[in-house]
Amino acid sequence: MSDALKALKTRLIEVADLEAVNAILNWDQTTYMPVGGGPARGRQIATIARIAHEKATDPAIGGLLDTLERQLENLPPDSDDAAYIRVARRSYDRATHVPSKLIGAFYEHSAASYEAWSKARPANDYASIVPYLERTLDLSRQIADCFPGYDHIADPLIDWSDYGMQATTVREVFVRLRDQLVPIVQAITAQSPADDSCLHQFFPEAQQLAFGERMAQAYGYDFARGRQDKTRHPYCTTFSIGDVRITTRVNEHDLSDGLFGTLHEAGHAMYEQGVRTEYEGGPLMGGTSAGVHESQSRLWENLVGRSRPFWEYAYPQMQQVFPEQLGTVPLDTFYRAVNKVQRSLIRVEADEVTYNLHIIIRFDLELALLEGQLAVKDLAEAWRARYTADLGITPPDDRDGVLQDVHWYGGLIGGSFQGYTLGNILSAQFYNQALTAHPSIPTEIANGQFTTLHGWLREQIYQHGAKYTAPQLIERVTGGPLRIEPYVAYLRQKYGQLYAL
Amino acid sequence: MSDALKALKTRLIEVADLEAVNAILNWDQTTYMPVGGGPARGRQIATIARIAHEKATDPAIGGLLDTLERQLENLPPDSDDAAYIRVARRSYDRATHVPSKLIGAFYEHSAASYEAWSKARPANDYASIVPYLERTLDLSRQIADCFPGYDHIADPLIDWSDYGMQATTVREVFVRLRDQLVPIVQAITAQSPADDSCLHQFFPEAQQLAFGERMAQAYGYDFARGRQDKTRHPYCTTFSIGDVRITTRVNEHDLSDGLFGTLHEAGHAMYEQGVRTEYEGGPLMGGTSAGVHESQSRLWENLVGRSRPFWEYAYPQMQQVFPEQLGTVPLDTFYRAVNKVQRSLIRVEADEVTYNLHIIIRFDLELALLEGQLAVKDLAEAWRARYTADLGITPPDDRDGVLQDVHWYGGLIGGSFQGYTLGNILSAQFYNQALTAHPSIPTEIANGQFTTLHGWLREQIYQHGAKYTAPQLIERVTGGPLRIEPYVAYLRQKYGQLYAL
Repeated sequence: MSDALKALKTRLIEVADLEAVNAILNWDQTTYMPVGGGPARGRQIATIARIAHEKATDPAIGGLLDTLERQLENLPPDSDDAAYIRVARRSYDRATHVPSKLIGAFYEHSAASYEAWSKARPANDYASIVPYLERTLDLSRQIADCFPGYDHIADPLIDWSDYGMQATTVREVFVRLRDQLVPIVQAITAQSPADDSCLHQFFPEAQQLAFGERMAQAYGYDFARGRQDKTRHPYCTTFSIGDVRITTRVNEHDLSDGLFGTLHEAGHAMYEQGVRTEYEGGPLMGGTSAGVHESQSRLWENLVGRSRPFWEYAYPQMQQVFPEQLGTVPLDTFYRAVNKVQRSLIRVEADEVTYNLHIIIRFDLELALLEGQLAVKDLAEAWRARYTADLGITPPDDRDGVLQDVHWYGGLIGGSFQGYTLGNILSAQFYNQALTAHPSIPTEIANGQFTTLHGWLREQIYQHGAKYTAPQLIERVTGGPLRIEPYVAYLRQKYGQLYAL
Repeated sequence: MSDALKALKTRLIEVADLEAVNAILNWDQTTYMPVGGGPARGRQIATIARIAHEKATDPAIGGLLDTLERQLENLPPDSDDAAYIRVARRSYDRATHVPSKLIGAFYEHSAASYEAWSKARPANDYASIVPYLERTLDLSRQIADCFPGYDHIADPLIDWSDYGMQATTVREVFVRLRDQLVPIVQAITAQSPADDSCLHQFFPEAQQLAFGERMAQAYGYDFARGRQDKTRHPYCTTFSIGDVRITTRVNEHDLSDGLFGTLHEAGHAMYEQGVRTEYEGGPLMGGTSAGVHESQSRLWENLVGRSRPFWEYAYPQMQQVFPEQLGTVPLDTFYRAVNKVQRSLIRVEADEVTYNLHIIIRFDLELALLEGQLAVKDLAEAWRARYTADLGITPPDDRDGVLQDVHWYGGLIGGSFQGYTLGNILSAQFYNQALTAHPSIPTEIANGQFTTLHGWLREQIYQHGAKYTAPQLIERVTGGPLRIEPYVAYLRQKYGQLYAL
């Protein structure tokens, strides 16, 4: 290893340590911290974030990267060192291209905006948030403009979470997906709804948690390098490749909430646990993009966790855990219940079929705002129109309409939604590829065997961490670019068995 | 506030944040971290410690202190700002007076020494550790010599934990205490031992934990600003004045282990929770010395928690929690059991009466080593001789003799033991003062009322944090210097009722 690379790695491991430390502080804050710890914790997190930013933007890193980029032609392009330098450059440019004055203004504004939204949403008062959102839009544009040379103003913002995906390409993909989804949703919701009353009995928390952990463990989530705790909102967080934790929440009157939350986060966590240990503490650690990450959570939550083979294996065990509640409920009834499709207003409660329509609406509106095609003051109305057109349901108020998600009100406008649907699309594309390589996977799943699938994903995706960009990884794994056909085929096939399509 | 003081506070709050962050990382490591997180956690803690040290020793702090010390005469000596400057200077000098090369050599050596001790103790192999301990002694002397002007070479080392206490003074106090304790121990252990079999039944963990927490809460430990978790070794740790946590361990076959551990740590925690919130994030936060800190843990553990009035209140509740185990055991039997005195080899298992003899032996041997009166190779023999003389019991091996405590093998020789006995002495001196002010306290305790005592301690001791040195605080609270008489009187009175003395 060259001296410059050694020096760069020494600097970046320090940055990675500081970022991991803040992840730990956040985890503690949301799991075990007593309420009295709040004010000091906010200060401690800000201190670590400030030091991490100082270290990450040290001009010496830029100098080392300049030196290393001159040596890059001597390295095999597919080598870990070459990837390390490329990814480190990307992070450094992201951290340094936005002037600190603009970052400061953005953080200050987004704190105020979040505060205003926290009041506006319960009050159903979109008008009060309009000036905040206008400023957010302005700042989002300014931040995008720090990365000149883009085709679409949303591209630099999309790059932050889904590097290598372009706004116009994603929009085209989403248009085609929407064209497929809308008629499916219409066909399903015209039929009598599935009966999911079996999920809405009383299920004690401790048994729910234990069952979810047993399933996550069966999947291959390694509890010697992770753990599950309870939080208000479920998430996955990585302190090191040897310590990837998940959280969940439990609703004692809704069996699916906690269980599928656990399976979802376990999918994220297995990805992070599966990264090569050589990447520990550096920019190649962790997943490569929001979309690829979501593909792994969705794959384990939906393509496996809501599949019939999975429940052939899991349902008898679940009946043993909840004999009074489920002892007489047939497998098919339960399977239909966990795959119930319905028109709904709220994204986070949406089913597998309708979910992407929620995302596509947000993505399109985000682009329209950034392009100047839509004014902030007209956003609530545009939201209602799209829900009526796409989902066949009109929000009766803004609380459960345009005000429902925190993303725009506590962050940037642009780049924060596309990953969810890219993930759903990719989950089927990757799973399809796994089935082609190992047609026995569904049979194995029905027998509680997940090692073939888990091993394939680790080999094809997990181990590489952030070494390949999402487009590169998709090409490597599937032999082509992102395609919606496997996902649409999956939905048609699965829901065609459950409903008349 | 002057600009220099403002600038100093900005710098020191950053240091305090980094130190709190490392406390959080350690807490997580000992409570919830999965085993796979170990290697990266060690690295993360080292990173934060290195940055904290860099920030704490920044020459700019020295410059600000120089400026502020020139302004010090304009400040009332008893003001918070004057105390802030004095305590900040003490920390800065401690952090900067030892050359970093010497610190590095010490840390490297103490890691190796700890490693060697981890093998030597189970192997009962004192000889193998002698060269390590000789180097530790040499390094301890070198570190002490970085603080010239001392009367005794142990003084700078004692100053780190018990600022303002001198080796020769402490030794005189301990000689007098030992003269009182040895005959008491002899008198008690000549009598038939107390029957503590009632404590050695099966007590399920969950009930033990819940009972301990109920008692800690009754004392006044605020669970909205703290919490209790399980660890291998109990401790108290402070993340902020609003977040002071304790840990405990539970032995299902020994009721006293977990309970008195909880009451002890709650005592430490109530001290830290009681510091004025204005001191948050600065050098005045936390307790003023190891001895004063230990006085608070011992006061709540022993003077309250092992007192007869306390058990008049608590025992009926405990009997309700453990009816099968304790329903027919009379209060007096239980009270004698939790105050059983016996000759023992192991410090951490020692009772209230013998405990200080264990400490005084270590303290005397430590001074003899530093003075050059005792060679490391003769330490094991000197240990055995003192145990025979003071406690009337001769260690059959070094494993449970000179090798039993980690202190000398993973840290300095000097300064780490005196605080325990200073704490015991002070616990009685302070409690005596509280009783003088409020003679109703024992009656209140028998009724489960702890607010008078807690309030008095908060007013007299807790709120001041590190503002006053231990000698200053003792003078303020008791009107005189540290005295052993209240402690000896307490032991004579209490154990005179339990045994013929």
